Amino acid sequence: MSEFDVKRNLTMLTDFYEITMANGYFKHGYRDTTAFFDMFFRSVPDKGGFAIMAGVEQLCEYLGNLKFTAEDIEYLRGKGFGEEFLDYLKNFKFACDVWAVPEGTPIFPGEPIVKVRGPVIQAQFIETMVLLCINHQSLIATKANRIVRAAQGRAIMEFGSRRAQGWDGAIYGARAAYIGGCIGTACTISDEAFGTPALGTMAHSWIQLFPTEYDAFKAYALEYPDACTLLIDTYNVLKSGIPNAIKCFDEILKPLGKRPKGVRIDSGDIAYLSRKARKMLDDAGYPDCKIVASNSLDEYIIRDMLLQGAAIDSFGVGERLITSSSSPVFGGVYKLVAVEEGDKIIPKIKISENVAKITTPGDKKVYRIFDNETGKAEADLIAFTDEVIDFSAPLTLFDPDFTWKKKTFTNYTAKELLEPVISGGEIIYKYKSADETRDFCASQLETLWDEVKRFENPHNYYVDLSPALWEKKHKMIEENRFE
Amino acid sequence: MSEFDVKRNLTMLTDFYEITMANGYFKHGYRDTTAFFDMFFRSVPDKGGFAIMAGVEQLCEYLGNLKFTAEDIEYLRGKGFGEEFLDYLKNFKFACDVWAVPEGTPIFPGEPIVKVRGPVIQAQFIETMVLLCINHQSLIATKANRIVRAAQGRAIMEFGSRRAQGWDGAIYGARAAYIGGCIGTACTISDEAFGTPALGTMAHSWIQLFPTEYDAFKAYALEYPDACTLLIDTYNVLKSGIPNAIKCFDEILKPLGKRPKGVRIDSGDIAYLSRKARKMLDDAGYPDCKIVASNSLDEYIIRDMLLQGAAIDSFGVGERLITSSSSPVFGGVYKLVAVEEGDKIIPKIKISENVAKITTPGDKKVYRIFDNETGKAEADLIAFTDEVIDFSAPLTLFDPDFTWKKKTFTNYTAKELLEPVISGGEIIYKYKSADETRDFCASQLETLWDEVKRFENPHNYYVDLSPALWEKKHKMIEENRFE
Repeated sequence: MSEFDVKRNLTMLTDFYEITMANGYFKHGYRDTTAFFDMFFRSVPDKGGFAIMAGVEQLCEYLGNLKFTAEDIEYLRGKGFGEEFLDYLKNFKFACDVWAVPEGTPIFPGEPIVKVRGPVIQAQFIETMVLLCINHQSLIATKANRIVRAAQGRAIMEFGSRRAQGWDGAIYGARAAYIGGCIGTACTISDEAFGTPALGTMAHSWIQLFPTEYDAFKAYALEYPDACTLLIDTYNVLKSGIPNAIKCFDEILKPLGKRPKGVRIDSGDIAYLSRKARKMLDDAGYPDCKIVASNSLDEYIIRDMLLQGAAIDSFGVGERLITSSSSPVFGGVYKLVAVEEGDKIIPKIKISENVAKITTPGDKKVYRIFDNETGKAEADLIAFTDEVIDFSAPLTLFDPDFTWKKKTFTNYTAKELLEPVISGGEIIYKYKSADETRDFCASQLETLWDEVKRFENPHNYYVDLSPALWEKKHKMIEENRFE
Repeated sequence: MSEFDVKRNLTMLTDFYEITMANGYFKHGYRDTTAFFDMFFRSVPDKGGFAIMAGVEQLCEYLGNLKFTAEDIEYLRGKGFGEEFLDYLKNFKFACDVWAVPEGTPIFPGEPIVKVRGPVIQAQFIETMVLLCINHQSLIATKANRIVRAAQGRAIMEFGSRRAQGWDGAIYGARAAYIGGCIGTACTISDEAFGTPALGTMAHSWIQLFPTEYDAFKAYALEYPDACTLLIDTYNVLKSGIPNAIKCFDEILKPLGKRPKGVRIDSGDIAYLSRKARKMLDDAGYPDCKIVASNSLDEYIIRDMLLQGAAIDSFGVGERLITSSSSPVFGGVYKLVAVEEGDKIIPKIKISENVAKITTPGDKKVYRIFDNETGKAEADLIAFTDEVIDFSAPLTLFDPDFTWKKKTFTNYTAKELLEPVISGGEIIYKYKSADETRDFCASQLETLWDEVKRFENPHNYYVDLSPALWEKKHKMIEENRFE
């Protein structure tokens, strides 16, 4: 946990209606009611086949540090809330249990990715931040991984801080991008906080400041002989940038016994320029000098560049990654799914004329079914938490919409996805380094079939319901229908 | 300035290359060089006719509090920077002058909206945060105002925190949305920090928790009789929500002598449902009960709803506002434009094969030309700072690309746009409340012709160069051309 986080009390980063409702529950018979809420999402950004879970660590930090300050209480008093409720907030002690899918895990529409159980006042109150934390970082991790996949093994660097949507957009965006597979970021503070390696060399202003492009290259090579990557498009890539770079490698690095690291092209027809530059560098004896491309890239442009035979070794990707600009919203929602009455758990449902907006009721858990032979993930199964499923027997899953579509697994392993991260209000989340989470993400992506990972019309991964859950849901829909 | 800001040291929220360059300047002859940088942008989001400046206050707070901590120095030592440079950072004293266009001002492509003069090491270092602060809030203020304009006088509430790109995306996004004309926000902490009124009533979970929809309405009306807005789409708007709302108004509010505030519809065919609901409310004696709509709205959907005769009085707008989802990047850039040599200011230019990417060199100022008769803004004029222009005489402006296109103003007022906000490293920015900035923005928008404000093919507002500046720029382009 980094210093700039714990210093900031974000308790009040909540939609105002969470507070009006909390006060209402407090005063109208639900003070001691225990409820269950699920966070889930309905569709994958960019019409992809899966998303990547991220943001759990920051959510846990927030939840573990909920506290209303004297200023917060005073502010709420000014809004008209009564003293009894304000006393409750003054003595607020977070008491919920929270489960979450581990960061770096592929996640799919319709399944609970965060589950909260606790006093309804509290479980309701945290809605905004549950969604905000997970929506943001999952969006960026998912986008980053698309870009990483498009580069087919070439390195992707996250360069978007300046175009991020706010400071945290840059800081935690860099973290999420790293989890999603980027090799590092331009964002220095993220490296300091999370160990996501900070990268970067020079801007055009560096070149402009010196009397000539060569002077600028020379000064850089002298200062950073072991990390000499030169920006070669300030004046003209092929007529000035590359010749000056080669001259600099010959005259400055060679006498020092050093090899160049790379050249970066940030404008123009990069596919064309990179091929020409590659040949010039090879001919000059620098086949090991990498070519880096930047300038408004995304997964589609990178894929196209590579199809055109671009000679690019790594990519710096800015605004289109850090804002997920082609699909900038991760639409996670947070819904009441059950209420405890005595020792019974009463499922709750939200009906909608829009079928996709009907919720799945009940206190639930999620299993991922892996084929033991291939190691691949085949489907996810949602069931009631208290349901006993015999995973030693063959398992038949069915499509929740077209129930005649069935599939039976015989040689499989079922792994529970939701892990406890907060227990009785206390953080039990096990901190992992960004490196560990990034490695975990890479290993989990190995379990997905390529058909799920492709960009166009990805295979629709199954998220199925247990027979008991399916029946309960459809019974509740029938009961709540209006003719 | 709010508590949660000053507690956080964001000095290291900078692209790593700002530090490699700072170190390079420090060690290679530019330690005492004074440079000028401009921030400008190249195109308006959503192909609009103008953008709205925002984020200056937060930028000033950052710049006024730059400070490298012992941990920062240690981190940088680990990255290999030398002791002399680290000593410089340890004793860092920000010394730049900064000018900015005031928040709430309409801004146009190509003109400097922030100008920085100071030691090149420092002026370079702050690039990332200059861009990040201004890009984010200007994006959201611009988008919010589009949505406000589409609503034709109806109120817009910012409801997007849960889908924002990170915490600050929500917090400062709410501030920017308010400046752009929203009447308030769901984001409570923004109200506490900036006085952007927090709004909100209930979620579907409130309705679901009670035994019946009517019970939920009744509890809410009893608790908030003066602010009773009911969410009516949990089960069925016309068959359940509206009848229950009317029953609640009759049985709970009427005996208390209270009138209902409104009903909110969050799903379904809102244009249709709102008309039906309006009639039912009118017939029941509640013509003063407002109808609020929400659910993935933006300026186009709102315009369409109103064209369809939707009976909606105000709109809650979420993810598409807080992320500016149809155009989620404000592409501001920060470029070196001049260097001081003795008492001379030497203009610098960045050439590009892409004409739009060529910079305008020199230490410059910007004037907005207002017609004295109409009060309308007619054009902006960029000139050298030391240029003396006789604004008492007729003023002829010409198109910088098609120089035969000219326009002469006789009865006009020229107003300088850039105001000093930091002097010698000290904040001289005059803090304004969000309300003042919002009012200022509204008054400035009055000076724009409707043709500039329309969504489709807006009039291209002129940003012209003085003859001296035009000549210098073209001379420098010629000198730097590669055949």
